Amino acid sequence: MIFARAALIGCGMIGGSLMAALRAAGAVERVVGFDRDPAHCGRAQAHGLVDEVAADARAAVLGADLVVLAAPVGATAEILETIAPSLQSARLVTDVGSTKLDVLEAAERTLPEAGRFCGAHPMAGTERSGPDAAEATLFAGRVVLLTPSARTSADALAACEAMWAATGARPVRMAAAEHDRAMAWVSHLPHAAAFALAAAVGGEADDLAGLWGGGFADTTRIAASDATMWRDIFLANRAPLLDAIDGLSRELSELRGAIEAGDAAAIERLIERARAGRRRVMAKR
Amino acid sequence: MIFARAALIGCGMIGGSLMAALRAAGAVERVVGFDRDPAHCGRAQAHGLVDEVAADARAAVLGADLVVLAAPVGATAEILETIAPSLQSARLVTDVGSTKLDVLEAAERTLPEAGRFCGAHPMAGTERSGPDAAEATLFAGRVVLLTPSARTSADALAACEAMWAATGARPVRMAAAEHDRAMAWVSHLPHAAAFALAAAVGGEADDLAGLWGGGFADTTRIAASDATMWRDIFLANRAPLLDAIDGLSRELSELRGAIEAGDAAAIERLIERARAGRRRVMAKR
Repeated sequence: MIFARAALIGCGMIGGSLMAALRAAGAVERVVGFDRDPAHCGRAQAHGLVDEVAADARAAVLGADLVVLAAPVGATAEILETIAPSLQSARLVTDVGSTKLDVLEAAERTLPEAGRFCGAHPMAGTERSGPDAAEATLFAGRVVLLTPSARTSADALAACEAMWAATGARPVRMAAAEHDRAMAWVSHLPHAAAFALAAAVGGEADDLAGLWGGGFADTTRIAASDATMWRDIFLANRAPLLDAIDGLSRELSELRGAIEAGDAAAIERLIERARAGRRRVMAKR
Repeated sequence: MIFARAALIGCGMIGGSLMAALRAAGAVERVVGFDRDPAHCGRAQAHGLVDEVAADARAAVLGADLVVLAAPVGATAEILETIAPSLQSARLVTDVGSTKLDVLEAAERTLPEAGRFCGAHPMAGTERSGPDAAEATLFAGRVVLLTPSARTSADALAACEAMWAATGARPVRMAAAEHDRAMAWVSHLPHAAAFALAAAVGGEADDLAGLWGGGFADTTRIAASDATMWRDIFLANRAPLLDAIDGLSRELSELRGAIEAGDAAAIERLIERARAGRRRVMAKR
């Protein structure tokens, strides 16, 4: 499958990497980009991630057979409304966001032909962001979760699978609600924990500077992530994330109680449960 | 400074790495090891970390001018009592534990010549453990915190500094109580958070297997750490750690409240505070 003209709305690391990968695979002929940050547009063009920069999102999608939404999750609904009247040529409208139910609902509400929409979420990324961090190999070997709805057309789903396969990723289908609940635990909760941990330790930092080790560095690595992006994700996946935060709070409270009580056996049991839990989550991929 | 005969009580990764580094630097002539796990003794000898294995801790320290305690923190007081009558040749008795006030108090309570004791804590280590994980280069370029007390002799302190300098580490002096408070925030709290997070996500693992990304992997890496070792550290540093856990709980609760209220600005402020806090803690080393 070759797309003649792709529109990339949001020229950050994920969208930029996707276009770089499609280009490297010969799966796209021309890429038109738009980003509300003009600096991002310029860098994306300089890196060859996009061939031209459009004046706005609506101009970018005109004549495009592939439309990729890769702006922060919070902006996606507004972008969909803006571009909805101009998608006559689109064969596939897709996104790369970390939450899927909110985007699906917005697409079905705004798009005249919602069957052309199929959400996607690649299991790849780093704490870096912006077009300078884009890499054509970012998705190689990674799972990408596709969340078609009952209304997604067979052609749009096939196009979405083919597009991701061209990047070297492995497409896996999943319902949007199931995706959001899983991500709340396995991705959004670790980010919430890392932010809370870095904020707590940072409040004591005057005495601590220079004493950090690999444990602190690793545990808080994702606390260096982009604030706007994660604010939007947390808000878009509110209910499942609150459940997950409550789950973490319960474990933390149980550990605290065992330490305060000097209950060595209870501490050890919780640690062993943590070790086994981590192995179970990471058992396969 | 060259030690003629070192006794290593506890032949795990840290103690084994120390002996490997001292040997590589020509700073020790002969090493006698003891570990209550016979398999550890055998592996330590096979790797050349120790020259001979003693029948018990007391036999190991007989005639040693350097005595290194490298068993889990919870065992140190008992070991000190056992070896106390047999330290006539010792110039330096030291340890490598992650908490320092408890060991210092045990040393001053049990040793007839407490001036020979100087605690130490190298800022190095991984989630691995045991003699198979020992590396002579583990401490190169790392800070090692030395916690002499008012009773520590100048000779013992000089010997401890020289020993660590020989491994390539950079010795920094600090009061034991100050050390324990700092470690509660920068090391013990990240471990508590990682254990709680891995336990919480692991409880949902049936639906999540295969969906983890780099964020989950990094944030929970240290949740793979040894349960006995961390049980002991948590108990040995109880009061400062409870303060730190409360600090984390407050941040997590604040983040939860902002998400539940849909307060985008408050979420963003907390994330920015986390980012700045991490940079501040990791600003120098």
